[in-house]
Amino acid sequence: MAKKYSEKHTIPYYECDLTRKLAIPTLMKLAISTSEHQSADLGVDNDYLSTLGLGWIITQHDINITRLPYEGDTITVSTLAESYNKFFCYRRFWLHDAEGNELVSITTTFCLMDLASRKIASVREEIMAPFEPEHIKKIFRNDTILPFNKPTVETPYKVRYLDIDTNLHVNNSVYIEWFLDTLGYEYLKTHQVERILLNFNKEIRYGDVITSSYELAPETPLITRHRIMNDDVLCAEANIYWKN
Amino acid sequence: MAKKYSEKHTIPYYECDLTRKLAIPTLMKLAISTSEHQSADLGVDNDYLSTLGLGWIITQHDINITRLPYEGDTITVSTLAESYNKFFCYRRFWLHDAEGNELVSITTTFCLMDLASRKIASVREEIMAPFEPEHIKKIFRNDTILPFNKPTVETPYKVRYLDIDTNLHVNNSVYIEWFLDTLGYEYLKTHQVERILLNFNKEIRYGDVITSSYELAPETPLITRHRIMNDDVLCAEANIYWKN
Repeated sequence: MAKKYSEKHTIPYYECDLTRKLAIPTLMKLAISTSEHQSADLGVDNDYLSTLGLGWIITQHDINITRLPYEGDTITVSTLAESYNKFFCYRRFWLHDAEGNELVSITTTFCLMDLASRKIASVREEIMAPFEPEHIKKIFRNDTILPFNKPTVETPYKVRYLDIDTNLHVNNSVYIEWFLDTLGYEYLKTHQVERILLNFNKEIRYGDVITSSYELAPETPLITRHRIMNDDVLCAEANIYWKN
Repeated sequence: MAKKYSEKHTIPYYECDLTRKLAIPTLMKLAISTSEHQSADLGVDNDYLSTLGLGWIITQHDINITRLPYEGDTITVSTLAESYNKFFCYRRFWLHDAEGNELVSITTTFCLMDLASRKIASVREEIMAPFEPEHIKKIFRNDTILPFNKPTVETPYKVRYLDIDTNLHVNNSVYIEWFLDTLGYEYLKTHQVERILLNFNKEIRYGDVITSSYELAPETPLITRHRIMNDDVLCAEANIYWKN
């Protein structure tokens, strides 16, 4: 069984949206922050990885939300690196409230990027061993993402300086902000996210102007289908499931 | 002497820019969060204010930066409500590093907004008394902001859902992101902010598309002059002083 790492966090107002609930892009930053703290704790942090010319990138999220915590709530964020195969590492995250109720459960797929060539590198035993994950052959894929046919709304977003992380590309949490923001005020204020199924396909750099589109297909009224395009290149796609 | 309130904070990666230093918009969120905690501690929080039909708004900042802390640093954020007159409350903030060195010093002017009319309301004794500020007659103004003549660069920004706070307008920290972002990657990566002198003139709402412009006048090469316009309305202006 992989090593579990947990930390408590009290949510400040600025991690919330106007309904005072934790904003989903921040939820994902919190999760990743916790996994970075585990990596540092085990002596295999990003600085160590960069000495090997490598950095972790995220290829998939499956985010399941029972309930989002509020401003001022103290939550526990937990994570473990469950398993890995030649190219992918599968990490789990959980948020629990102060009474131990599960708020959020996330499965995230990571892989290693060669920082010089910007290409995928194979996962090395010495990087993974400290987390005590299961070494597996199987490659897991996210559940099927429903096809995107025709945009209901398309919104352009220009990459900002603060969108860029130390890997010199747009941070994954920004894609989630772009996916959600295009839905607009009325939709976001009156709907609750149940699940986000998300594939990252391509990195986005400073200077790029991307288009975040969504489709609300009549046959799946509680699922919005999303994609982020950089000109003709698909950078990410998602399905967002909304509570009934 | 006004009551001082302090709290410690360890900076997560997601509050930093790509240089791993605390991002200035987040610095301001941290400061305001600390003053909100002091207000809650003294029984005069935003919920209490809203029962009176009031909310605090910010009209000016004078932000002086000696050095920005890094990801992982534990800092102390302190604040006190120094003084107030009929319409304005003057609050001080400081950031200190773990050795007690001052990193940042901020003076912020607040006033009360009538939430229904969106107009300025006079400051009431019962709201201020718990902070033990000095009651003064004098009205302080920020140092003169250099006039804005001709934009060097103008960038449009569309208000996003997460830019809106519980007062239902764009949060003050977002103006600071817009001021800085228009300067672009190369400028921001190679220059350090020394001081930001900032006046807020007008609230901005969801759906607005504002223009953030800056001017680099040859006679003041270490000061950029900024303004945010919503059509023909000046919403905020700033001077940003850069370290030599």
